[in-house]
Amino acid sequence: MGRWEPNSRGRLEQAALELYGERGFEQTTVAEIARRAGLTERTFFRYFADKREVLFAGAASLEALFVSTVSGAPESAAPLDAVAQALEVVAGAFQERHAYARERQKAIIANAELRERELIKLASLSAALADALRLRGVAEPAASLTAEAGVAVFKVAFERWIEEENERDLWHLIQESLDELRAVMAGN
Amino acid sequence: MGRWEPNSRGRLEQAALELYGERGFEQTTVAEIARRAGLTERTFFRYFADKREVLFAGAASLEALFVSTVSGAPESAAPLDAVAQALEVVAGAFQERHAYARERQKAIIANAELRERELIKLASLSAALADALRLRGVAEPAASLTAEAGVAVFKVAFERWIEEENERDLWHLIQESLDELRAVMAGN
Repeated sequence: MGRWEPNSRGRLEQAALELYGERGFEQTTVAEIARRAGLTERTFFRYFADKREVLFAGAASLEALFVSTVSGAPESAAPLDAVAQALEVVAGAFQERHAYARERQKAIIANAELRERELIKLASLSAALADALRLRGVAEPAASLTAEAGVAVFKVAFERWIEEENERDLWHLIQESLDELRAVMAGN
Repeated sequence: MGRWEPNSRGRLEQAALELYGERGFEQTTVAEIARRAGLTERTFFRYFADKREVLFAGAASLEALFVSTVSGAPESAAPLDAVAQALEVVAGAFQERHAYARERQKAIIANAELRERELIKLASLSAALADALRLRGVAEPAASLTAEAGVAVFKVAFERWIEEENERDLWHLIQESLDELRAVMAGN
């Protein structure tokens, strides 16, 4: 075992992102990521299964945050309100990470394998949200549709947030998207 | 060039589906699919890039059908109504293919690579629908959100249609899902 290095995970994420931006995902090796972070390959593999997963290490905790907030919403909350509460909590967790999120999105858009992995992440999130809603007593197909709508709103608002040079409030963009989807569904 | 064989494409699709059901996707080779269909490997590769694409040969025409219907909807149609018209046309195209669609879904659910490919198909469909809506003058984020909602409704209704032994009308299930999503977004 090497000696403990402070914030190894974060340094590896940052190093990977820099290298993917500089030379592309395919052209970057785990050895190079570890070197850039001032760590060993062995340390890399203590945190991540491979160089793809470096960009998805947060997916499980994102999903857990969504699910726990939906599950913890007041019993009286309508399905969409429970999901909106989760979106607000998640937006707060992202708010300070605009620069990182931008760089990450750039790397993902540039590579088909990473784009597929991102789709899997969102599909998994939608399935987990639908499960959480069913546990709250929401019937099908309302549970699946609410989960899909929540993920769609998150995805669209997140992409707008990322695109803007001048960082706006993510929760504000999510609320705008929610209102927009409400208007679309009401036929306006 | 081999001699022309009637409905080679359909026979290859059917043979692939049978074999994926019998022994699994991984365990099936292109040679076996061709043999089961009474055709050559060479003929297989005239139609499909690989054994995964056999199950996605219809994806491009499905997308084209969605897009052309949205594009051709009356100018006065609201974004969601244009998408609903496309859903009705697509439902009609699927209606006679319940048995095939069921077997295909079973094969896809059983294999991670095929599930990923299905996610890519739906993401591509959503992007194409959003493009078609923007061409109709729908602004963002309404275009992307309407497209996402349409694909979500299609996906959820399609899965219900597939699950049922007793075939119901796909368009009826789509309308139910549309109504359900409307109710969810209205906070009911």
